[in-house]
Amino acid sequence: MDDRTDLIEDRQDEVSSDIQLDLRTWLKLLTCTTLISAELRRQLREQFDFTLPRFDMLAQLDREPGGLVLTELSKRLMVSPGNVTPIMNRLLEEGYITRATSSLDRRVQIVCLTAEGRKKFRRMAKKHGQWVNAMMGGLELEERRALSGLLDRLKGNLRAGGFSDQ
Amino acid sequence: MDDRTDLIEDRQDEVSSDIQLDLRTWLKLLTCTTLISAELRRQLREQFDFTLPRFDMLAQLDREPGGLVLTELSKRLMVSPGNVTPIMNRLLEEGYITRATSSLDRRVQIVCLTAEGRKKFRRMAKKHGQWVNAMMGGLELEERRALSGLLDRLKGNLRAGGFSDQ
Repeated sequence: MDDRTDLIEDRQDEVSSDIQLDLRTWLKLLTCTTLISAELRRQLREQFDFTLPRFDMLAQLDREPGGLVLTELSKRLMVSPGNVTPIMNRLLEEGYITRATSSLDRRVQIVCLTAEGRKKFRRMAKKHGQWVNAMMGGLELEERRALSGLLDRLKGNLRAGGFSDQ
Repeated sequence: MDDRTDLIEDRQDEVSSDIQLDLRTWLKLLTCTTLISAELRRQLREQFDFTLPRFDMLAQLDREPGGLVLTELSKRLMVSPGNVTPIMNRLLEEGYITRATSSLDRRVQIVCLTAEGRKKFRRMAKKHGQWVNAMMGGLELEERRALSGLLDRLKGNLRAGGFSDQ
């Protein structure tokens, strides 16, 4: 085996170990997200008889006192408009949100939180924060800050690379 | 306001900022996972006409030359047995896996990769590694190592805390 072959093989090992690291990181990212999601789903169901997609929709609307256009709501939830409709319909039935046609453009629908929806959401959100804190709390504060910073970097890179869900 | 009230308020601010940090970290974790998953789904569909759940099932089976018992496969995929069945049936139809009844216990089903399934998986896995690498590659190697280590810590804590999907 001559030096050139050695060099090429070293380079291949390097590339390969680089990909291995990223694959392992991705699988851990996926596992953590799956475990945390599952626990939040379980708690929401048991304590509030609520689903995570319905909770997420109320969370988006809670930030927008003037309501959100349906297409924007769908975009922020990273869910297709078709999948947003059944979640929205259920929340309408329960009286937690209202839907109105825009006075400027009749094709545009605006979704708003009702007072009851806001009350329900705030009660669940408080508990939700405690559940997340209980799951992350095993890490030192410094570690959680470092993790937060690294995920910021990753998220920024994903957005910049055009890897957007829309 | 006396000193005692000050102390209580400081403590509340501390608890609250702690929860805020964890909530922001959790939302970033979820966003990164959603963006990476969506890109992998898109690439698998466009380049191989394949779905991510089918790819994940082949990935689990590729690691086990002797095959996997159906319940164990379901557990490793963190998907309920009911949701595993349609994915498995599709792969059976395509000839990428086989299913056999255990000779020791007729209630136990063992799923195996076929030679064709292994070939198909390896071809997709190579590309899959490159896609993940392309999405993570914007971070420095040191950052990716740190992220991997922190996710190990989080995953270990979640498992230890009994926050398991099963």
